[in-house]
Amino acid sequence: MHVVVNAAMSADGKLSTREREQVAISGPDDFDRMDRLRAESDAVMVGVGTVIADDPSLTVDDAARRAGREEAGDPPNPARVVADSRVRTPPDATVLDDRAHTYLLVSQAAPPDFVEQMEDAGATVIATGQDRVELVTALAKLEGDGVDQLMVEGGGELIFSLFEEGLVDELSVYVGSSVIGGRDAPTLADGDGFVDSFPELALSDVERIDDGVLLRWTVA
Amino acid sequence: MHVVVNAAMSADGKLSTREREQVAISGPDDFDRMDRLRAESDAVMVGVGTVIADDPSLTVDDAARRAGREEAGDPPNPARVVADSRVRTPPDATVLDDRAHTYLLVSQAAPPDFVEQMEDAGATVIATGQDRVELVTALAKLEGDGVDQLMVEGGGELIFSLFEEGLVDELSVYVGSSVIGGRDAPTLADGDGFVDSFPELALSDVERIDDGVLLRWTVA
Repeated sequence: MHVVVNAAMSADGKLSTREREQVAISGPDDFDRMDRLRAESDAVMVGVGTVIADDPSLTVDDAARRAGREEAGDPPNPARVVADSRVRTPPDATVLDDRAHTYLLVSQAAPPDFVEQMEDAGATVIATGQDRVELVTALAKLEGDGVDQLMVEGGGELIFSLFEEGLVDELSVYVGSSVIGGRDAPTLADGDGFVDSFPELALSDVERIDDGVLLRWTVA
Repeated sequence: MHVVVNAAMSADGKLSTREREQVAISGPDDFDRMDRLRAESDAVMVGVGTVIADDPSLTVDDAARRAGREEAGDPPNPARVVADSRVRTPPDATVLDDRAHTYLLVSQAAPPDFVEQMEDAGATVIATGQDRVELVTALAKLEGDGVDQLMVEGGGELIFSLFEEGLVDELSVYVGSSVIGGRDAPTLADGDGFVDSFPELALSDVERIDDGVLLRWTVA
């Protein structure tokens, strides 16, 4: 499986404000690039915090790209994957609509009621880890289901966890021309943070897009 | 006065680990660029958190640059400025040594004992604001003392406060090729953060340096 983390942050590394309010960081060209990346992926993954804060659809916006996927024998939209250790996905979340198939990653401690509710909504529930999603196993199960190209859109807690487990192959960061600030605002990689050994990246590409810059790294 | 904020952050926007441990983010070419910028400045400013965490000298490393300043009639090193609202500068801090003149910005609530101790160590104490440094007035006083070019090296609390007060003219950020992570790790701009109105920047230059990239913005 190839895992690409793709996110947009302010010049000071924030994904949104301290109130988790989305801020328009990237512009139309970067949005189009992200839509293309979605269309090229087998699945698009977010953490449940992103589902709660933004209620995204995670679907492909461009109709021609959806048609192209169908011509290739794929569903019009990539599958959606939500990492939800604490079973917080709202039953009316947009990611549970019928525009794409959805996987919900939970821990083995997830209450059967919640699992049943999600399955009733059409989701495939994958339970790994005692009380927190065990990402290595969960992603292996997704790969067994045909997910070879996985795009991760955030948030910072999920991105950190994926780096912690050594699961990230590529990191694409659009750096916008604004300052959000805030010691409690979500950043590109939150979690506990690394203290002595840090994932090493190799900068592969630098490209000005809209009024910001796209930085792409591969993970060593 | 022209205020340039210059800092190095990881790919995820962190200045250091959650334990405030410095991490080598930039390489020799960026260090040289920063040393040149110091040599071209009238003063170099940090917040007291940076003094406590890193005990920096804030002096010019390159002897030829120091000599060049002296030939131009300037002191060998730019002045040092420490913003210290809560009077935490240790009396044995390196910024109080005799290699450069040092300004300590405190509030009017600073205890006379502390002020006397800092003045005994050779520092010029500037008191503005009731219980927190009032940066607009403090910087105006520095300008009155001949500081036309001010370089700010961090940390995130000071950088946020300067943006909040509309005092930043340029932002130079070296983005290194590592991930530090951590929801409590210091970021380029901490403080309370902006929630609805954000400083708008204009990206003026993008340059690959060492194994990272230098992004330069002017502030609208």
